[in-house]
Amino acid sequence: MSDYFTIRWIDGCVRMIDQRRLPHEVCYLDFYDVAGVAGAIRDMVIRGAPAIGAAAGFGLALAAVKSEAVTCHDLWSDLQHAGETLMRSRPTAVNLTWAVNRILQKIHRTTWVEVSELRAEVIKEALAIAAEDAQINRQMAKYGLEVVPQKARIIHHCNTGSLATVDYGTALGVIRAAHENGRNVFVYVDETRPRLQGARLTAWELQQLGIPYTVIADGASGYFMRQGKIDLCFVGCDRVASNGDTANKIGTYNLALAAYAHGIPFYVVGPTSTVDLQLPSGEEIPIENRPASEITWVEGVRIAPAGADASNPAFDITPAQFITAIITEKGIAVPPYQESLARLCGVL
Amino acid sequence: MSDYFTIRWIDGCVRMIDQRRLPHEVCYLDFYDVAGVAGAIRDMVIRGAPAIGAAAGFGLALAAVKSEAVTCHDLWSDLQHAGETLMRSRPTAVNLTWAVNRILQKIHRTTWVEVSELRAEVIKEALAIAAEDAQINRQMAKYGLEVVPQKARIIHHCNTGSLATVDYGTALGVIRAAHENGRNVFVYVDETRPRLQGARLTAWELQQLGIPYTVIADGASGYFMRQGKIDLCFVGCDRVASNGDTANKIGTYNLALAAYAHGIPFYVVGPTSTVDLQLPSGEEIPIENRPASEITWVEGVRIAPAGADASNPAFDITPAQFITAIITEKGIAVPPYQESLARLCGVL
Repeated sequence: MSDYFTIRWIDGCVRMIDQRRLPHEVCYLDFYDVAGVAGAIRDMVIRGAPAIGAAAGFGLALAAVKSEAVTCHDLWSDLQHAGETLMRSRPTAVNLTWAVNRILQKIHRTTWVEVSELRAEVIKEALAIAAEDAQINRQMAKYGLEVVPQKARIIHHCNTGSLATVDYGTALGVIRAAHENGRNVFVYVDETRPRLQGARLTAWELQQLGIPYTVIADGASGYFMRQGKIDLCFVGCDRVASNGDTANKIGTYNLALAAYAHGIPFYVVGPTSTVDLQLPSGEEIPIENRPASEITWVEGVRIAPAGADASNPAFDITPAQFITAIITEKGIAVPPYQESLARLCGVL
Repeated sequence: MSDYFTIRWIDGCVRMIDQRRLPHEVCYLDFYDVAGVAGAIRDMVIRGAPAIGAAAGFGLALAAVKSEAVTCHDLWSDLQHAGETLMRSRPTAVNLTWAVNRILQKIHRTTWVEVSELRAEVIKEALAIAAEDAQINRQMAKYGLEVVPQKARIIHHCNTGSLATVDYGTALGVIRAAHENGRNVFVYVDETRPRLQGARLTAWELQQLGIPYTVIADGASGYFMRQGKIDLCFVGCDRVASNGDTANKIGTYNLALAAYAHGIPFYVVGPTSTVDLQLPSGEEIPIENRPASEITWVEGVRIAPAGADASNPAFDITPAQFITAIITEKGIAVPPYQESLARLCGVL
């Protein structure tokens, strides 16, 4: 167990570690309503597809608690409105929509008499989503272990650890499991501009886990690959289309291209809640554009000249052809993904 | 003419713009001895292969002025010592060695009687190197224009403008010439971690030239290429081996791989003084490792956790196979480079 946590439900309040202040300060913020949770997602107090899925669940739970509705119909209406607010907070990760829909569908299937019962059910389902996420990550890590050799020098992009999930992590969860199982792992940590989740969050998590690592500039991955220093790549995902095209943090595609050029396996790790079977390909995944200031300023210090223009897509799409396998809690999907993902998701 | 300059010889003093403080402050530093110039190169007060070649020339000129030698033999000995100090300051760019050797060979060919004559000759040759660099860049830009279409959206890495040279620039010189010749150019500026020469210096130079641009994270180049938004890539070089393998700022290789994957032309621009015909391939080019703190801190602010390890190769090698052409002041070299570079350098 880590001595920090990403997100928790505490007596009608959602507590989150403030990831914007890590690794310099470990502090927590409490949110009491859905607007607060949506803001926390948008401002990246919390980030990582599975973590924001859990946050959306708790956001609905807060909406249920705070609602002044006296009929189940009105509460339902308030919950739908809250779900829309949450789903609008960030567009790319499908986990937000997945969590909201899961809760709304669950309560939709039952005929409710008491508002209090309905409220309790929303909270229960939100807690279930969070609890399952921690279990799912451990299960993914078990599958992931199959592809990690006894000695592995791994490039990792962005942050996919405990902080990106409710606990344990996705891609970083596999690395952690490999380390805990006595494998000799060394991690090249892409710093992951512009938000520096690698340098700030992944380095911090690896330090606490005692896993050896070195932080590198994102542009240096090809250099280390060409030097023969990289055995594997592990990344997370924000949305996987039915054909295996994967949206993940900006820079993932460049990393995948470099890995492909060097014949280095490139693994995506994520729960099936991140798979969006509705979308035929990555072309349909909406890519969030974030403020230019994330590029032109770092930690409150301006780096580019005043008035500089910057473009800041937060995610990119890695086409399935560059992905060796997609590791989920239900098993490992390999090409052709159309078939393997559908089978793992239970629709084939 | 720009209203700033990179480096100048002023009455026995070398004045340089302090590039570490750009774009926030435009200030100049004066150096009076060879140790000061070597330190300025090492600490990146001045950077860019052609610019540090000129700095090395002026460093030798300072050594000539400051030397207390009373015989030509002793002065020669002092100059050799000064040359070694300068060549040690940074290992990758061959221009340092080129400039030092050019001056030493020039004075070696003559029989000197007066120490003052020898001193004057060193200064004269250093001034010639600097003056020629400005001319060479304009000549390269003329050749470069041949490959720039009427409308061109260009990715550029690091800084290769006036600041990287004595004046005008190499890769950015081509872009500037295209703009000045009425072509419709738009520049995607790789911010170029870790030192952020793109965000800090290239954005600043483009702003002053009135050339439209946007700064992007280095990891975003593949995203924009895949969106069909990039027509060409232009980069500079720190050393080109005889087979065309090119050392340039870290991140260049990743950019070249992305361009190759998308069928986008990738041009290297640099003077023939950057070509090292002595080296059979890029494998033999020494790559400078710079301090980890350049990764873990930005502008005096720590980003990674205390104690974080980081690896900071300052350059990478782009193999010749990924380079469409190498544009020099003597013409455009195309594959096979072994032959075309030798011909341009006049040894074939």
